[in-house]
Amino acid sequence: MAAVSPAPRFSVSQLSAANPKVKSFPSSFIHFRFSPSRHFPSSAASTAALSFLRKTFKTSISCSAAPSRRPEYIPNRISDPHYVRVFDTTLRDGEQSPGATMTSKQKLDIARQLAKLGVDVIEAGFPAASKDDFEAVKAIAEEIGNAVDEDGYVPVICGLSRCNEKDIRTAWDAVKYAKRPRIHTFIATSPIHMEFKLRKSKEEVVEIARSMVTFARSLGCEDVEFSPEDAGRSDREFLYQILEEVIKAGATTLNIPDTVGINLPSEFGQLIADIKANTPGIENVIISTHCQNDLGLSTANTLAGAFSGARQVEVTINGIGERAGNASLEEVVMAIKCRGEHVLGGLYTGINTKHITMASKMVEDYSGLQVQPHKAIVGANAFAHESGIHQDGMLKHKGTYEIIAPEDIGLERANEAGIVLGKLSGRHALRDRLKELGYELDDQQLGNIFWRFKAVAEQKKRVTDADLIALVSDEVFQPETVWKLHDLQVTCGTLGLSTATVKLTDADGEEHIACAVGTGPVDSAYKAVDLIVKEEATLMEYSMNAVTEGIDAIATTRVLIRGENKHTPTHALTDEPFERTFSGSGAGMDIVVCSVKAYISALNKMLAFKRRVPAKAASSSPDRTPVSA
Amino acid sequence: MAAVSPAPRFSVSQLSAANPKVKSFPSSFIHFRFSPSRHFPSSAASTAALSFLRKTFKTSISCSAAPSRRPEYIPNRISDPHYVRVFDTTLRDGEQSPGATMTSKQKLDIARQLAKLGVDVIEAGFPAASKDDFEAVKAIAEEIGNAVDEDGYVPVICGLSRCNEKDIRTAWDAVKYAKRPRIHTFIATSPIHMEFKLRKSKEEVVEIARSMVTFARSLGCEDVEFSPEDAGRSDREFLYQILEEVIKAGATTLNIPDTVGINLPSEFGQLIADIKANTPGIENVIISTHCQNDLGLSTANTLAGAFSGARQVEVTINGIGERAGNASLEEVVMAIKCRGEHVLGGLYTGINTKHITMASKMVEDYSGLQVQPHKAIVGANAFAHESGIHQDGMLKHKGTYEIIAPEDIGLERANEAGIVLGKLSGRHALRDRLKELGYELDDQQLGNIFWRFKAVAEQKKRVTDADLIALVSDEVFQPETVWKLHDLQVTCGTLGLSTATVKLTDADGEEHIACAVGTGPVDSAYKAVDLIVKEEATLMEYSMNAVTEGIDAIATTRVLIRGENKHTPTHALTDEPFERTFSGSGAGMDIVVCSVKAYISALNKMLAFKRRVPAKAASSSPDRTPVSA
Repeated sequence: MAAVSPAPRFSVSQLSAANPKVKSFPSSFIHFRFSPSRHFPSSAASTAALSFLRKTFKTSISCSAAPSRRPEYIPNRISDPHYVRVFDTTLRDGEQSPGATMTSKQKLDIARQLAKLGVDVIEAGFPAASKDDFEAVKAIAEEIGNAVDEDGYVPVICGLSRCNEKDIRTAWDAVKYAKRPRIHTFIATSPIHMEFKLRKSKEEVVEIARSMVTFARSLGCEDVEFSPEDAGRSDREFLYQILEEVIKAGATTLNIPDTVGINLPSEFGQLIADIKANTPGIENVIISTHCQNDLGLSTANTLAGAFSGARQVEVTINGIGERAGNASLEEVVMAIKCRGEHVLGGLYTGINTKHITMASKMVEDYSGLQVQPHKAIVGANAFAHESGIHQDGMLKHKGTYEIIAPEDIGLERANEAGIVLGKLSGRHALRDRLKELGYELDDQQLGNIFWRFKAVAEQKKRVTDADLIALVSDEVFQPETVWKLHDLQVTCGTLGLSTATVKLTDADGEEHIACAVGTGPVDSAYKAVDLIVKEEATLMEYSMNAVTEGIDAIATTRVLIRGENKHTPTHALTDEPFERTFSGSGAGMDIVVCSVKAYISALNKMLAFKRRVPAKAASSSPDRTPVSA
Repeated sequence: MAAVSPAPRFSVSQLSAANPKVKSFPSSFIHFRFSPSRHFPSSAASTAALSFLRKTFKTSISCSAAPSRRPEYIPNRISDPHYVRVFDTTLRDGEQSPGATMTSKQKLDIARQLAKLGVDVIEAGFPAASKDDFEAVKAIAEEIGNAVDEDGYVPVICGLSRCNEKDIRTAWDAVKYAKRPRIHTFIATSPIHMEFKLRKSKEEVVEIARSMVTFARSLGCEDVEFSPEDAGRSDREFLYQILEEVIKAGATTLNIPDTVGINLPSEFGQLIADIKANTPGIENVIISTHCQNDLGLSTANTLAGAFSGARQVEVTINGIGERAGNASLEEVVMAIKCRGEHVLGGLYTGINTKHITMASKMVEDYSGLQVQPHKAIVGANAFAHESGIHQDGMLKHKGTYEIIAPEDIGLERANEAGIVLGKLSGRHALRDRLKELGYELDDQQLGNIFWRFKAVAEQKKRVTDADLIALVSDEVFQPETVWKLHDLQVTCGTLGLSTATVKLTDADGEEHIACAVGTGPVDSAYKAVDLIVKEEATLMEYSMNAVTEGIDAIATTRVLIRGENKHTPTHALTDEPFERTFSGSGAGMDIVVCSVKAYISALNKMLAFKRRVPAKAASSSPDRTPVSA
């Protein structure tokens, strides 16, 4: 089994990369790749198989070829009726899920990756939530919102706002730096929300929506999205009415959210069809879907909506979001790519799917929300049949059981076969490999990584991509350093009291030493850190995963902490302040050391927010209208 | 935040349990529970809200009340046209996913839980895969397949077999002990599978299917299920033809698998409708769905199939299975429960949903396949909005954002408010609490747990359900003990070489001591264990999670190992031998100690298989027909 991948998450790719007989068919048949060497002499193999596949499936089942070019961006219409815009809300809906708080730098990294994917719209945050949220949206608007590529593509940068002037003005102040800024405002329209949450009549709700869309346009924003929250449970006639009014007021996109995830696909498809058929003026705007996943139906609902006429789909990477999350970008996009042509009337998106794997890993890392092994498209097992199966069996399978080629989502890379770094690899090889993996580092960052890479290579024969990614996450994508682990010494086991001694350096380089006794090595080490850092923090979650096979693997620890009650931005859905929580990660070959590094990383993240947030965060005024999307 | 749950997985339940104002509405409106105390004087609150909800939603959106009683079991028909049978294949399709190997005892535990859930059919395994698989199916048939409850319910016990006499006879020999035994046989019918995998003509495939169903009936089995593998990509006319033939041969259930997960819901629904409309004799059998999740659409496809006339749905707990897994029981069942009456024409199942949470946790534990926090229904966040939100905000939300009540899936228990065990709790309280949690232990097991419970209670103020479940999993649900950890002593950190000393006792109680040096505490301890146990094992996966909040939490470690090439049952889908992998878990307050316990647990599981499997496992003969479901 020497050829089996040392990195579980990349096992399929490396299996096939190691076998020179694997052929890639042209992209239109790429999901039927297999090794026919078992049944055909190898030279005739691909020809026979290809001809068979062409004959049999040409009109029914194939990943459609790369779509024609992306239509020019005009807020309220799309020149090609088959083009579906992808609106990613990982940084807004996703980031507000429990524990997923990200720093501005992490948000910028993700926004950059979303632009590589080619998403049409990035919902960068909810600027009125807090000063931090505002600054992050503004930074994304300034950088990512102005990085026009050679084809003229640049993502729309969108900010969420409740239906009130202060929110809308704040959103505009954050997104207006982008080349294509958008304001997204929303108010609830279902009876239960209007009666019990808003305590407003239908007429009042219509008037608020109309006037706030007008207000958004009056600021100079030509791209305004409006969502009737809980549309899935709203009265149809009322929906047609309020949507007609906001169209007249200048809305350019109408987003229809199944806020509580209660719709079945037939229902949601019908809802979109009804809105399309009955709303005066609807032909002048884009209809959008936003499907929550409470019953596990968000992807199907989104596709049903698109089939019924929606031309924007709101999704998140890995499907993260509150409760059971949102429709996931990778599922919706791959379903449209594989079946759009034949089952969905020719729909297509502008997504470059080769960046999906990296986007998924980045969001997993930054949000701390890990995907399950059997997650569709991006789960560790999604392309594996069973561990340890003979290579031959695996290859025979590719044709029969695999509908998406791993390289289509960036899981298999062109030159992977030849490159496994070892202790003789130099700085240049490391930089090249990291660049191929999507990380562009400056010289200082590369220097730091290089020395850690050498330390690992001393102890492991093969340093894999997964090892490298863990080291990069650990070294580069950390919050600003306040405290840093210098040394650690731990004694533990069943025979005595766990004792830890830590030496930390602070921002000024001063060293601090403390020791503590605890119930285990992590408990004692964290207590020693607490003695030095003197910040109240509650450990809420703790998890660890080995990123590579073998006992000498690199492990990554993730922790989630909550501090005192000082980090309380306003939540878009609830109109309530909520406490931020902070995730941290640490990687290394000693699980106790990386546990301590993860804790210090989370503390540093918390301190970064604390230093920037004044005593009272930008927060709610009493007359604010509570709303949601 | 004192009232916030100390156990993240139960946070919502405990939040509401701590507030006496939360009202449960009658089950037909239970998903709209909320605390109206904000807007109404508390006494009038529930009346006003309830009346509002009744008026507004009575015909559109509500979890339907408990279904009428389960129709009598007759293999090929159901007296109530609205009843949908639930066929659980966690132990067959789920167990063959990477790393999910379970011991016979674990399979029995899960089968017992499936019977509590009230699934109509348990697919207990693939008996021809190996002697272990055979024995596990037989044990389930004998015990679970004969435990008739007071209402006359007992699950059908089903065994999978490829379309050959040896497989079918083996399956029958395993399931025949059940009161209601079923054989499930399958052969591929798609052009690509017939041409490249079977290398058989359509005529040959029909003849094999017809004769093997006849053979199964000839053994005395009156309940035979047949699956045309890869039906989702098969030619329609050919499907009608082969299905007609197997109906004539005596098949009682026809299962239609979307084997590669490529269908969209509209397509899959149409496939079922077409089969129903065009297959002669179809009115005399039950149509079933089996949807893989490769595009994230398995739940929607399953519901579309049921809406089109399928009256059996094949699902797994947590949606586990190969690649992206199967439709998950909890999503399909809760969607039917919440929307069956109004959107799916009155469909219902016989599932007692209160046992879903426990089933999910048990399968997560035994399979080692953890669900993501945003997994629908059973994910840790599925019922949470964001961590740290004010209780008031949380409660206000229940009405507006929650469509399923946590207690409907067993997440909130009647008397939870009052019971958090502490160091003064006695053995009796512990036994009661464990019983409520679904664990019935014998005196010796209880004794072992009790002492560990006391040790934890000494160090933690509150011992939560999550703590207890971790301890039970660690203590009771372990493979037979061969090696046991006696003592461990570790020194590690950044300052020197990690060194571990372990003392193990073997099955005869003899003590063995060894020490080793490694790259970290786990590496050194595992090396020391290897010096004693002397079994070749490769660590493939390693993960750890804290099950409760706080630095003094109990952590659970899970490892997956692969031994030498001696554990090679035959895979149903691939017709190839594959290497088993073995998971192990350990829980405790010291992460190094529980890491070592997890490793020893996995080694013990591996040794249990090794001792029972002769040099060559019951495996493939060259004339076997390769097929799948």
